[in-house]
Amino acid sequence: VQIAIMLFPDFTALDAVGPYEVLQRLPGAELTFVASERGPVSADSGVLTIEVPAAFEDVPSPDIVVVPGGIGSRQAMVDDATLDWVRQAHETSRYTTSVCTGSLVLAGAGLLDGLDATTHWGEMHTLGQLGAHPVEHRVVQQGRIITSAGVSSGIDMALTLAAMLSDERTAKAIQLMIEYDPQPPFDAGSLARAGDDIVERIIEMAVDRPDL
Amino acid sequence: VQIAIMLFPDFTALDAVGPYEVLQRLPGAELTFVASERGPVSADSGVLTIEVPAAFEDVPSPDIVVVPGGIGSRQAMVDDATLDWVRQAHETSRYTTSVCTGSLVLAGAGLLDGLDATTHWGEMHTLGQLGAHPVEHRVVQQGRIITSAGVSSGIDMALTLAAMLSDERTAKAIQLMIEYDPQPPFDAGSLARAGDDIVERIIEMAVDRPDL
Repeated sequence: VQIAIMLFPDFTALDAVGPYEVLQRLPGAELTFVASERGPVSADSGVLTIEVPAAFEDVPSPDIVVVPGGIGSRQAMVDDATLDWVRQAHETSRYTTSVCTGSLVLAGAGLLDGLDATTHWGEMHTLGQLGAHPVEHRVVQQGRIITSAGVSSGIDMALTLAAMLSDERTAKAIQLMIEYDPQPPFDAGSLARAGDDIVERIIEMAVDRPDL
Repeated sequence: VQIAIMLFPDFTALDAVGPYEVLQRLPGAELTFVASERGPVSADSGVLTIEVPAAFEDVPSPDIVVVPGGIGSRQAMVDDATLDWVRQAHETSRYTTSVCTGSLVLAGAGLLDGLDATTHWGEMHTLGQLGAHPVEHRVVQQGRIITSAGVSSGIDMALTLAAMLSDERTAKAIQLMIEYDPQPPFDAGSLARAGDDIVERIIEMAVDRPDL
């Protein structure tokens, strides 16, 4: 099983590394990062750079495609080379997946027209404008396409995917390996439970760091 | 607030990127990855390489130290340059923290002698042999030292740390930004709930990939 995680400048690192950490442990899987060209690609923070070993032409037909999100998805979703690769890879993939605003890139490639899909809570309206039906679920599957919610949701999505690619026992073994027994210290991970006061704090913080 | 995430060859990527994704969003924080020398450092899978911008001598006294785990911790925990840096950084740090088997590196540096601490469930006995008191909690704080359990626990640890460095409202805003509303598809994230059958599957999988 060849798994390709696509990176682009200003991606959100956890969007990519969450699924990576699950899927690299799948028996028989061959995982690679891929980008428009080989070489360093920096995440949205500017302080994390991944050395990408493969260009689009090196990985034309992966079995699994994972597209992360991040502020750079705004460029990626209108970049011809990126959209061409996503469309081409999807023709033969077993599953084409996204995390966070990675779904906007899938939508930009025309893959989500008329389909249920999800994304980061802050970009649900954009997903609708691009022709998908936004759904407020953590993971949304429509045939061969799986989209997931903001940033950390990629871990949940990848465990679901791991079970589909192997079996539930193997996926559970991976969950135990990465001790994914989440115990968030606060209950503010969803818009509904965080409430308006926390959204206001995000708006304050965004003055200095609009990419967040 | 200067935050240094220490990398070493064969680290586990999510151990480092979980805390990174939380802490890089902290207002006023200046986060950097650091290693014995500048340049590429590859994770335990061999397929993820981070370009590290700072060597130990570039970051002598960070406010926050984060040490991830991974199979490479076995080397790091006996590497003089690494242990010297950890000891020196801890002298002036506000908090010195670890994820997964990163606590073995802290123990190797002598920081955990007689203290409660945690690590990946598979290495609790090693932690005890190194002079700490292993405790089966997700996050364990002892004064300025915070250790956390396997791989994914770094996200929980970092949110706790973010609240201590700023305030709970800011930490909750970060939790909402990364939509950390975990919904694991299975309940196998802890040794107690996964059970023996899943542990047997891990042992089977480890035949081909002993580093997992």
